[in-house]
Amino acid sequence: MRDMVEIGLGKVARRAYHLDDVSLVPSRRTRDVKDVSTVWQLDAYRFDIPCVAHPSDASMSPATAIELGRLGGLGVLNAEGLWCRYEDPTEILAQLSSCGEDEDLSAATRLLQKVYSEPIRPELITERVKQIRDGGVRVAVRVSPRHTLSLAPVILDAGIDILVIQGTTVSAEHVSTNEEPLNLKEFIADLDLPVIVGGCTSYQTALHLMRTGAAGVIVGVGADRWTTFDNVLGIRLPMATAIADAAAARRDYLDETGGRYVHLIADGGVETSGEIALALACGADAVMLGQPLANAAEAPAGGAWWHSAANHPELPRGWYCPPAEGPRPPLRQVLYGPSDDPYGGINLFGGLRQAMAKCGYSDLKEFQKVELLLRPE
Amino acid sequence: MRDMVEIGLGKVARRAYHLDDVSLVPSRRTRDVKDVSTVWQLDAYRFDIPCVAHPSDASMSPATAIELGRLGGLGVLNAEGLWCRYEDPTEILAQLSSCGEDEDLSAATRLLQKVYSEPIRPELITERVKQIRDGGVRVAVRVSPRHTLSLAPVILDAGIDILVIQGTTVSAEHVSTNEEPLNLKEFIADLDLPVIVGGCTSYQTALHLMRTGAAGVIVGVGADRWTTFDNVLGIRLPMATAIADAAAARRDYLDETGGRYVHLIADGGVETSGEIALALACGADAVMLGQPLANAAEAPAGGAWWHSAANHPELPRGWYCPPAEGPRPPLRQVLYGPSDDPYGGINLFGGLRQAMAKCGYSDLKEFQKVELLLRPE
Amino acid sequence: MRDMVEIGLGKVARRAYHLDDVSLVPSRRTRDVKDVSTVWQLDAYRFDIPCVAHPSDASMSPATAIELGRLGGLGVLNAEGLWCRYEDPTEILAQLSSCGEDEDLSAATRLLQKVYSEPIRPELITERVKQIRDGGVRVAVRVSPRHTLSLAPVILDAGIDILVIQGTTVSAEHVSTNEEPLNLKEFIADLDLPVIVGGCTSYQTALHLMRTGAAGVIVGVGADRWTTFDNVLGIRLPMATAIADAAAARRDYLDETGGRYVHLIADGGVETSGEIALALACGADAVMLGQPLANAAEAPAGGAWWHSAANHPELPRGWYCPPAEGPRPPLRQVLYGPSDDPYGGINLFGGLRQAMAKCGYSDLKEFQKVELLLRPE
Amino acid sequence: MRDMVEIGLGKVARRAYHLDDVSLVPSRRTRDVKDVSTVWQLDAYRFDIPCVAHPSDASMSPATAIELGRLGGLGVLNAEGLWCRYEDPTEILAQLSSCGEDEDLSAATRLLQKVYSEPIRPELITERVKQIRDGGVRVAVRVSPRHTLSLAPVILDAGIDILVIQGTTVSAEHVSTNEEPLNLKEFIADLDLPVIVGGCTSYQTALHLMRTGAAGVIVGVGADRWTTFDNVLGIRLPMATAIADAAAARRDYLDETGGRYVHLIADGGVETSGEIALALACGADAVMLGQPLANAAEAPAGGAWWHSAANHPELPRGWYCPPAEGPRPPLRQVLYGPSDDPYGGINLFGGLRQAMAKCGYSDLKEFQKVELLLRPE
Repeated sequence: MRDMVEIGLGKVARRAYHLDDVSLVPSRRTRDVKDVSTVWQLDAYRFDIPCVAHPSDASMSPATAIELGRLGGLGVLNAEGLWCRYEDPTEILAQLSSCGEDEDLSAATRLLQKVYSEPIRPELITERVKQIRDGGVRVAVRVSPRHTLSLAPVILDAGIDILVIQGTTVSAEHVSTNEEPLNLKEFIADLDLPVIVGGCTSYQTALHLMRTGAAGVIVGVGADRWTTFDNVLGIRLPMATAIADAAAARRDYLDETGGRYVHLIADGGVETSGEIALALACGADAVMLGQPLANAAEAPAGGAWWHSAANHPELPRGWYCPPAEGPRPPLRQVLYGPSDDPYGGINLFGGLRQAMAKCGYSDLKEFQKVELLLRPE
Repeated sequence: MRDMVEIGLGKVARRAYHLDDVSLVPSRRTRDVKDVSTVWQLDAYRFDIPCVAHPSDASMSPATAIELGRLGGLGVLNAEGLWCRYEDPTEILAQLSSCGEDEDLSAATRLLQKVYSEPIRPELITERVKQIRDGGVRVAVRVSPRHTLSLAPVILDAGIDILVIQGTTVSAEHVSTNEEPLNLKEFIADLDLPVIVGGCTSYQTALHLMRTGAAGVIVGVGADRWTTFDNVLGIRLPMATAIADAAAARRDYLDETGGRYVHLIADGGVETSGEIALALACGADAVMLGQPLANAAEAPAGGAWWHSAANHPELPRGWYCPPAEGPRPPLRQVLYGPSDDPYGGINLFGGLRQAMAKCGYSDLKEFQKVELLLRPE
Repeated sequence: MRDMVEIGLGKVARRAYHLDDVSLVPSRRTRDVKDVSTVWQLDAYRFDIPCVAHPSDASMSPATAIELGRLGGLGVLNAEGLWCRYEDPTEILAQLSSCGEDEDLSAATRLLQKVYSEPIRPELITERVKQIRDGGVRVAVRVSPRHTLSLAPVILDAGIDILVIQGTTVSAEHVSTNEEPLNLKEFIADLDLPVIVGGCTSYQTALHLMRTGAAGVIVGVGADRWTTFDNVLGIRLPMATAIADAAAARRDYLDETGGRYVHLIADGGVETSGEIALALACGADAVMLGQPLANAAEAPAGGAWWHSAANHPELPRGWYCPPAEGPRPPLRQVLYGPSDDPYGGINLFGGLRQAMAKCGYSDLKEFQKVELLLRPE
Repeated sequence: MRDMVEIGLGKVARRAYHLDDVSLVPSRRTRDVKDVSTVWQLDAYRFDIPCVAHPSDASMSPATAIELGRLGGLGVLNAEGLWCRYEDPTEILAQLSSCGEDEDLSAATRLLQKVYSEPIRPELITERVKQIRDGGVRVAVRVSPRHTLSLAPVILDAGIDILVIQGTTVSAEHVSTNEEPLNLKEFIADLDLPVIVGGCTSYQTALHLMRTGAAGVIVGVGADRWTTFDNVLGIRLPMATAIADAAAARRDYLDETGGRYVHLIADGGVETSGEIALALACGADAVMLGQPLANAAEAPAGGAWWHSAANHPELPRGWYCPPAEGPRPPLRQVLYGPSDDPYGGINLFGGLRQAMAKCGYSDLKEFQKVELLLRPE
């Protein structure tokens, strides 16, 4: 049953699957959609929907982090993003909302590289955190593993609720002869707030990250239609397999600790209500959404979208996506409808509820047990 | 042989197949096409062709229900459609026949949502049923599970031959804390006319629906090229697998009851004569046709097509398909030819007969035994 | 290893493969291309190349049958084609060479249906056969199973070398209550010339056709990019599997008869030198070529192409392919080069020789043993 | 686990995989990119990067061979290319840099056929070799098996470091009744410089080529998006499988000789940093790059690209690729960045380093052990 394939003499590869390769199978019972709950609880915090924002500057400003929090999700501001590099990044964001219209992707890439070359200003982190806290919602801030030791003190002092340590492919064991690597386990042990860490891409890494004491582990590296990890690094991450593997790690870690449940947040290729349902069905506890939030009327870059890997100074791994034409729905409508988009991009969590009801499940944890089928290759 | 695949550690999915994934294999015998019969008998009713109309307003008006009946098939009027909401829906249908020409799908979706927000008028159901009955054909009316208890009395009083209780993903066990759910088994037991119920999507649900006493079970949810259940709900239904599974349920139920044969009506992705043949070959007794009938010259919406899921007020799951260009063939020609369309969209049942002849089978029940092959992935 | 798949509970399908799914694997030896022979011998007749013409009016006129014969292949005239319906079909062919330019496929289909509705004139068969015989080449004529009893006497009296009885899906056992079916075995036993019969689509049918006494069996139904058997009938015929299955029948029949070797002629989807090589590698002794010959400068319909199934009066199963733009190469160049087309459509048999040399084989029979690989799905 | 498939009765094919079918799986450890080494050592020669130039005239002139050598790779000049046929090919290269702009591929093919019909002039080989040697880099020259006996003396006398004997599908056992074939084993035994030989396509051929005494074996035939071996010859070579098979031969040969390690150079379909990483992960020691080098600012044909098989006089097996629009990066930037191309075509070896770091490996040999996954079919 384990799908190991010999791709050549003595060289094997394991078959892996994307979310779009699987489908939910309704059980023999259906449920009233009004009986379905999408509540997600992480540590002491309760959210109406299992929705964490991907901390891209295209989706998250202090204002949209507040708005998402008010609507029941968890906003995450990037401590290394434009809001923490510029006193007022609105003009830059305006510029970023309209480049690429002549389809010169390289020019957009160069602009991204340029605006992100400005240094991070710690005092701005403090200011942005205060702004979100004043909005009356949970405050979550993202920092990369590389900058955690230097920026974490500022971030923590600013008074946040949840710390997100996120890079593409984070491991619990980073080896370097050049600088002292971050010891995640020690670092987290010293904190008294929940930490979300990732992204990870395998059972082993997920398990190791769980053992650092993290409250949540991000599965996936945010790979979506606009990222090119595949072309640049030869690394592709079929999310259905990645989530299921991490769920196995969660199960084993639960057993090993006699009851510590670490939440899995799926980050990659989740754009529609159908994909949210599939990610949860594969075993995720919540999803990290990027582009769908960047498309909301309130989004900071006017509907444009880019993954943070798109602005790497020497090796960009994503491309700039210009705003779609036509009016953009307010964030509330993106999350809760009503929708006039038959493709599942609006009413994301209404769609999830409907999927759960059709399949016969009334809460998220139970829904992880839904049967799956694999569509023809 | 059972195709269970481990998509991740401890998480399995079953491989499933679409009609287009399989192909008929001619046996070593061929038959004269004149010796082939396509007769289908449901309960006391005999039809020249195994053709049931999908009760969309784009394909079924009282007039087309009559025409289809005269041509040997079974028309089905939607008790919750435009004909039972408006005294005279012709102007609305005319509007619906031409929107979408500027390709603004959202606008078409909004129009659908608007025209279906008008309340259902029970007295119109009575009137429409009378009109079809006066046409001298079998009268079948569709109602959703949700409205069955309220509308069925009106429908039954109006004097119909066959009741169709159809929703997307109907189960024999609907759970609700808000309203008393329909008990299909008790409901059907009280009736003295054949009931067709569905759509169902698995062996379990099919078997449970058979046990409600239904004469026919609809397999599938009408998913076609214009529906987006997949994007919105994460539910995809490969029809070859769904039909074969339901056929296994039919076999087991036949054994369990010592002889009750429940008919399977395949509803989903059946557009060409080739697909009709494949659906029957997988085990269906008849097919439910939507778009191919909506394309006939007599069709109520001038060739436009939409699935009823396309007009959901908050979560539309299908898109409006504008009429194809060029002249549209009369319904008789759609069903029986002659055809000048090499793609199998005209002469649907002449094509079926030819397929049966080439494969060496002379009636529908026998044809269910034809061998299949799976095309390369 | 046998690839049976359960597509649903209790319903299996066998996996089948197209020519384009497989690839030749060069052995550890290479050969000088000058040492490679492509000679094919059918009964008493020797051909320089294993090339039989598909008897479409788009590829075969008396003149092109002669030209192909002179160049080392076997031309086949259709006794039911335009040349045997019209005293002089050149004007009709000219019309057929230019319709479809406005891409109205239905109009082209209707024209095909119209021109083929003219009755067959037996005296023209006699005349066309004489014309080809006078050209000094082997004369082969195609007749359908349905017309064999009525037309064969005329055809045989006209003095041919090889009779081709060909329909789509021919079986050795045609069942009819309306007319006495052709008994192929008795019919062939009475003849003293080699008969090629087909197309067949499975091991069973191939074996049964071999037992009729045929010298050659056609595998496949000529399905190519321009046929739509799939859409219209639900019948798709992956040629790699069909040829290999028929080759197994040939082996078993050879054993059963203590040495009668029946030739397999692959008819379907063979357009390039690469596909010729693959068809032979799967077990064919020769290939039937249609569109590639119709594209030659001498071809009767100016480069247009249609399969005979495209002109069925009630159920067309193929579409008209208008001529490609630009100059068309003479038949000699199509077969033997030189080529300036990197896509394998010119120098068809030079390409075959090169493939045989690269793989290390020097004659056709030996080449059937070449190893294959299956490309990723 | 070995993937043998029965494609028809008694006929099997082995499943094979392309580089794009597999993906790297990061291990649980990550590494600092500064700790990663891409050094490759062939015989006595050390290279900063495992990069060998494909000896096409589109990528390699004496000048670009020098430039590549200076940048840490190995340039290879084609002894049968334009530089050894024309005193000054710059005008021809200019012509070749702009044809095909009107998309007439046949015209480009004919031009290629024409310019390569000029005879090879041995004295030019001597001159070109001198020129490269004067550039202070390692000198490698390519000759085809067919011309090895006649041209090798000139090439060797000119004073080179590495001889590359390369044709499409080279075997250790070429059979001919027309001319005495090259005995590779004897030929190589007589030389005192390292020889690279290939391309080979299977375990058997790789092993036999290793036994000739070659220092390096080329795996693959340079098949890329612009070659058509498939269409013309029916030969397709999935590189992941070919490389892994050759790596198994390398292992077995190492054992059989008690320690002779033959290097594998992957030639085919390697265009991006991701594909370089995948080729090495499958077992290659180095990659042969064609089109990516032809796209550099310094490239001889102004950004145009063609494989040497594209100019075959009678059977071309590749097509001319006109230059991409826009500015072209200098070779240094192609190899080492910085990149503004998110698709992995620039900073090829920076991308490789990053991939190695993310996966947790610090040198090339170790990196061959990285785990792979197979993406869904």
